[in-house]
Amino acid sequence: MSYNKTANITAETINPRVKMFNYEPCGEIARHAERLQEELNKNPGSRPFQEIIYCNLGNPQALGQRPITFFREVLSLCDNPALLHRDEAHLLFSQCAMKRARKIIEAMPGRDSGPYTPSQGIKSLRESVADGIAGRDGYPSRPQDIFLTDGASSAINLTMQILIRSEEDAFLCPLPEYPLYSGSILLHGGTMVPYNLSEDGDWGLEIFEVKRCLEEARISGLTVRAMVVINPGNPTGQVLSVTNQEEIVEFCRKEGLVILADEVYQDNVYVEDKKFNSFKKVARSLGYNEDDISIVSYHSVSMGYYGECGRRGGYMEICGFGEDVMGEICKVASLTLCPNIGGQILTSLVMDTPKIGDDCFEKFLAEKESIHSSLVKRAKTLEKAFSSLEGVTCNRIEGAIYLFPKIHLPAAAIKAAKTEGVSPDIFYACRLLNDAGIAVVPGSGFHQVSGRNRAAGTYHIRCTILPGEDKIKTMISRLRAFHESFMNEFRDRN
Amino acid sequence: MSYNKTANITAETINPRVKMFNYEPCGEIARHAERLQEELNKNPGSRPFQEIIYCNLGNPQALGQRPITFFREVLSLCDNPALLHRDEAHLLFSQCAMKRARKIIEAMPGRDSGPYTPSQGIKSLRESVADGIAGRDGYPSRPQDIFLTDGASSAINLTMQILIRSEEDAFLCPLPEYPLYSGSILLHGGTMVPYNLSEDGDWGLEIFEVKRCLEEARISGLTVRAMVVINPGNPTGQVLSVTNQEEIVEFCRKEGLVILADEVYQDNVYVEDKKFNSFKKVARSLGYNEDDISIVSYHSVSMGYYGECGRRGGYMEICGFGEDVMGEICKVASLTLCPNIGGQILTSLVMDTPKIGDDCFEKFLAEKESIHSSLVKRAKTLEKAFSSLEGVTCNRIEGAIYLFPKIHLPAAAIKAAKTEGVSPDIFYACRLLNDAGIAVVPGSGFHQVSGRNRAAGTYHIRCTILPGEDKIKTMISRLRAFHESFMNEFRDRN
Repeated sequence: MSYNKTANITAETINPRVKMFNYEPCGEIARHAERLQEELNKNPGSRPFQEIIYCNLGNPQALGQRPITFFREVLSLCDNPALLHRDEAHLLFSQCAMKRARKIIEAMPGRDSGPYTPSQGIKSLRESVADGIAGRDGYPSRPQDIFLTDGASSAINLTMQILIRSEEDAFLCPLPEYPLYSGSILLHGGTMVPYNLSEDGDWGLEIFEVKRCLEEARISGLTVRAMVVINPGNPTGQVLSVTNQEEIVEFCRKEGLVILADEVYQDNVYVEDKKFNSFKKVARSLGYNEDDISIVSYHSVSMGYYGECGRRGGYMEICGFGEDVMGEICKVASLTLCPNIGGQILTSLVMDTPKIGDDCFEKFLAEKESIHSSLVKRAKTLEKAFSSLEGVTCNRIEGAIYLFPKIHLPAAAIKAAKTEGVSPDIFYACRLLNDAGIAVVPGSGFHQVSGRNRAAGTYHIRCTILPGEDKIKTMISRLRAFHESFMNEFRDRN
Repeated sequence: MSYNKTANITAETINPRVKMFNYEPCGEIARHAERLQEELNKNPGSRPFQEIIYCNLGNPQALGQRPITFFREVLSLCDNPALLHRDEAHLLFSQCAMKRARKIIEAMPGRDSGPYTPSQGIKSLRESVADGIAGRDGYPSRPQDIFLTDGASSAINLTMQILIRSEEDAFLCPLPEYPLYSGSILLHGGTMVPYNLSEDGDWGLEIFEVKRCLEEARISGLTVRAMVVINPGNPTGQVLSVTNQEEIVEFCRKEGLVILADEVYQDNVYVEDKKFNSFKKVARSLGYNEDDISIVSYHSVSMGYYGECGRRGGYMEICGFGEDVMGEICKVASLTLCPNIGGQILTSLVMDTPKIGDDCFEKFLAEKESIHSSLVKRAKTLEKAFSSLEGVTCNRIEGAIYLFPKIHLPAAAIKAAKTEGVSPDIFYACRLLNDAGIAVVPGSGFHQVSGRNRAAGTYHIRCTILPGEDKIKTMISRLRAFHESFMNEFRDRN
């Protein structure tokens, strides 16, 4: 070791909180799937399949979902506003995209899409978002309550950075959970208090369970600051009923908890008997305003029929925090100067789409409905396929883009997993990948298996509905064959 | 107060570290300038000037700098890859932009610019960046050492999040400083150890001064992990000599400090006798490799002749951290999923520009040189103007986009400031804004005035060279008149 190595930067000498959290999208299965695909590219005959079918990541456009033409045309024009003054541009862009791009550019600092914007986002774009929210909910929304962000994850991280003072500050989070929450809470020095969703109740949320967790947390000395709700649910795919949401609002109001409402799947609802309602709308309809209850709503351009994940656009609407706090949030946001302009523009488009009468309306609607109806079809098909497998139960997928089936693994499989030193759900998911070329995320990545958890001993996988319809067909036939052979290998024989 | 307000979110109940730091771009002068401009728009005759001249923010395109056509064409095409298959596109885009966009899109996951990318950034784009660095330095660079980021600030925040374990972890930072560093270090729970740049030595860095600060810090129990160097300097505009850089490398190697090299102004050098050298190049030329010294270099698309601030693109090249740390950085980066794709693309373009023979090369070069030569002209003009003012000394501006003149304020002005309860530099900057409509940042925003500081009692303003040449002319004549009248009002009479 040379002298300078006294300050060597290794995993032993960095922020210990960084090492504490796990984040499954970066996980072993994803890396193994990549290696496997590379191996297949080199030796095409080495496995009984030619390509991995990726059902692990919620990344629609990587799996064939096409972008909405209107969105991309506006982005393209805003990147290169010189096009707006060229006659030939009419050959390549719709009137309606040119009109919108012109409107956006004219309201920008410097009349171009290059400068830093205010840290909270460009005012005119925040106005579009606020109008979109008001139109969706039927209740007013104010641009000064909107922060445009680089996707919802940045907004969630920023919230944790603002709210967490010490390890005693705690957050109620659903289990199975989206691991961004546990990761972000840990990294920022707080404590996650998990509450269980009810698998037997279609992954609904039982308020007595949340209350039990809150009380336990308070007894152990924690200050519970907020309750995280993901609706529609990730990884569980449920859409909360209005009654259920009303209970949550009443509960949080009474207990003095902020509602952190992850509403990024608001345009992914697949059932006739349920629709998306924002928590703000539910609170307002109960007569509560921002003095009664604080709500932060997160949305992004990554999901829904838009699926523009890599664009990193999103917003949070903050209702009920003090004026002074809004200034402090702006200050922390300014440490990264401003959200990226492309993401800001796209967020405004998602919240303010073409209207009847616009020349691109028909095309926009057709593209949107085609994506949506295909997602509905894939959701139903996969739900049926999983439910038909031996020992698998699968709740109805009402929204979001995931199924989270429970796999009743035979004792011999659990034993084999133990021998290999891995959790049984990981064992199943690895076999599924190696033998059938299907990548899914093991349920334990969502902390479904936990000592505190009444669901301990149950095993799940998370499977997206995102591969194209043809690939879903292939995937199902591979899954059936694999599962049958897996069960034949390990089936309980008593 | 209703019951829920027990958990009210106010500035009193948020993360106290958030309240601890100041960040001048969000500061009072900037807000006051905005209010003043609004007032002028309403009552055009209310002041002796019609518009504010903004010399406070480093936001080139907000002040008229035009974007490089090639960059914007490629971005525009990547946003809407359908254009690449349209004959009419040749009417609107150069061959060379179409070729580059095609190459970028073909190497992307899903062959479109929509999906999440790896958290570290798209591999092919990281390869372009690494090639660009290798070409610039004459020493190899590896794509696995590059993290594409949402601008340099995100990268700096990420570094602090990784390196800081407790308040005892400290960072040597230059004074006057760019307040992102103090803000980020405070927010992430570490300690800043300031070292003074030498105003009398053209804002150069004296290694004995840094050593003094290091020793003091160590005696007080701090673990100094890294030394921040901003070259070319913000707010001081110096370009370090190679000899000075060699001293820094030897010092950090010997003392086991990581060099955090903020090199975002590498394309802003205005003098013939100096050029930009990266710290990595200097270290390699001394024969040191990544086992001898760890260096993180930050760059972005925001400055230089590109000036694409709002695009939020950048990279950090990390040399000398352990493999395991790179994985942990990737994990933290994955909490915000990935850097925005537009920023990633633009970063690759900035590091891999059109070459001789490309159909757009002449135009690219002309645009680049026109911006650069105008910046040189404005730098010289402003330097001369400030130096000619009574009681003002102004170091040579060698690089970056700022002048940081010292204003020798008369005792009566200092007294008047005291009466108003503000720092004398703020007093001067406010008067300059109110009386002459010129917005600058008071030096105390860069912590130049500090008890520990041997420069205590000196007063500065930071003034950018970014307004267009015509506006600079207006600005100088307003500045001269203001300064004369200010001095007449307060001049020492003894």
